[in-house]
Amino acid sequence: MKLATLRANRPDGQLVVVSHDLSRCVSAGRIAPSLQAALDDWDRLSPALAALSTQLDKGEISGQPFEPSAVLAPLPRAFQWIDGAGYMGHLERVRSLKGSKDEELQSVRPLLYQGGSDSLSGASDPIVVPEDDLALDFEVEVAVIIGAVPMRPSREQAASAIRLVTICNDVSLRRLVADDLQNGFGFFHSKPSTSFAPVAVTPDTLGDRWRDNRLHLPVRVEVNGTLYGQPNAGVDVHFDLVDLIVEAARTRQLGAGTIIGSGTIANHHDATLPIKEDGIGFGCIAEARTAEKAKFGRARTSFLKPGDRVRIAAIGTAGRSVFGDIDQTVVALRP
Amino acid sequence: MKLATLRANRPDGQLVVVSHDLSRCVSAGRIAPSLQAALDDWDRLSPALAALSTQLDKGEISGQPFEPSAVLAPLPRAFQWIDGAGYMGHLERVRSLKGSKDEELQSVRPLLYQGGSDSLSGASDPIVVPEDDLALDFEVEVAVIIGAVPMRPSREQAASAIRLVTICNDVSLRRLVADDLQNGFGFFHSKPSTSFAPVAVTPDTLGDRWRDNRLHLPVRVEVNGTLYGQPNAGVDVHFDLVDLIVEAARTRQLGAGTIIGSGTIANHHDATLPIKEDGIGFGCIAEARTAEKAKFGRARTSFLKPGDRVRIAAIGTAGRSVFGDIDQTVVALRP
Repeated sequence: MKLATLRANRPDGQLVVVSHDLSRCVSAGRIAPSLQAALDDWDRLSPALAALSTQLDKGEISGQPFEPSAVLAPLPRAFQWIDGAGYMGHLERVRSLKGSKDEELQSVRPLLYQGGSDSLSGASDPIVVPEDDLALDFEVEVAVIIGAVPMRPSREQAASAIRLVTICNDVSLRRLVADDLQNGFGFFHSKPSTSFAPVAVTPDTLGDRWRDNRLHLPVRVEVNGTLYGQPNAGVDVHFDLVDLIVEAARTRQLGAGTIIGSGTIANHHDATLPIKEDGIGFGCIAEARTAEKAKFGRARTSFLKPGDRVRIAAIGTAGRSVFGDIDQTVVALRP
Repeated sequence: MKLATLRANRPDGQLVVVSHDLSRCVSAGRIAPSLQAALDDWDRLSPALAALSTQLDKGEISGQPFEPSAVLAPLPRAFQWIDGAGYMGHLERVRSLKGSKDEELQSVRPLLYQGGSDSLSGASDPIVVPEDDLALDFEVEVAVIIGAVPMRPSREQAASAIRLVTICNDVSLRRLVADDLQNGFGFFHSKPSTSFAPVAVTPDTLGDRWRDNRLHLPVRVEVNGTLYGQPNAGVDVHFDLVDLIVEAARTRQLGAGTIIGSGTIANHHDATLPIKEDGIGFGCIAEARTAEKAKFGRARTSFLKPGDRVRIAAIGTAGRSVFGDIDQTVVALRP
């Protein structure tokens, strides 16, 4: 089944079940008031949500048109957002890791950072930046929403806790990354609100596109209508989502509704932008710039600025957007 | 007024109003089902909570005995926990900053890290450690729970967003701090579940003990019945709570129910443990060990181990514990 959260007159929005083709939806309010409430009591409530999903897909109930512009993030605010680094290709490019001691360490244990989760952005929300020159970038990732996991879980416990899968844009302010890391307290100002696709999908609904704890789909990114990348999220995975969950629970339990990100999706290749229609490209601008520096001696691709538009979609059968599109425009904060 | 959350058959517990002397409490369920719900609609709901508090303190309603052993953290799970570094004395001691470039930078802008907030510990919950040799430490802090704050707020907006004040223990696994910082992604494994005092208190109830955006009370720490410290939270404050809120909102808004920590309370002095009944001492073990290394050439005070007990209380008039005691025992995770 596919779930989304519509804007409503309360912070956690209105939980809806969405049809497989994303054309219609129906309120799940009689089952659970919010996605968090559903996750808190998943074993008891998810069969009723699944039944509603079947009725909607069979046309037994008509529901209402599903308008992506009306969605909040599936969890508009979450109790936890942890972002991992599952694709070494991304780290190698943005951190110049190749052959370093850090690369060795980071290929044994995945890196994780604690992200802000109090104000997650919906798929069509603007990306609001307080200043123009912060080197705004997107980062295209897979995300899973999980049930409760105890401290030091087995891989089986971690895998069976995965409730929903979606994609996200881990918005990054590259100009502030160096300051954050120099301070030693980790990412903070450089990682403002992360954005999520309109719907989150149960693993069983993804069929063989979800196997080995990873999503086997290309995720396509366009900036102002130009293709920047379409790396396959199932390729060149160094740490899968279960690796990341197990690592996250090394010294603590994880609460129901925790969101775990895969890290920026990156496939190995040596090309630069622009890419052809069948090219792989990049899941963030910083990687493209690193490749350009290596090839041309300088970065050519600009970071995002107010007015730019980023569109991100995981592409399934017949070119369909599986989770709906993240489609955001950059806006400057009004003083 | 004083608010607490009692253990109940749901993740967010049962909101109660607690009498000023912490002897009795009464359910606030008819006003708000949880503290988060109260914070989401504070302007409308807090007058009713305050009225209930007045009735309880006047004896117009009898309520029930308030048992600190029955409490969860005021917010058992929060959408955000941000910890700052407001006391330079702590950073100077644990990071050997004195006279460094980092000290200069960190005295201009406060450090902040994003903490895990999905599973916050109650005042009497055990501190569960997965291994014995992780150099377990406590960190005694002031914490404020705030309403929503926009990106780039004024100091006035930040100050007026402070809803509740309490104290907390930012539990730290020192052995993992170096790994976390080496990785560059910030604290993660080294900062398991943070613990909170039984009650959170509105600033007006604290009277002149809350002024200039800081708590003017000594916070007393005992380990296994021995006094380790009683630094005054209002003394040697380099960044106050409003400084920390403003800094936290540099690139993003902050959601209602965000908790901000002051950083480990530290007063300037050159003494070592043991301290006398009128001594100042330390708000964490790492600082005591640094002072010992400087004076004796080696650290004498051990980190915590299973079976150890930590008791933390902010001391008000007539020696009374203003927020109730954090009183935790260290327990090893059962395999």
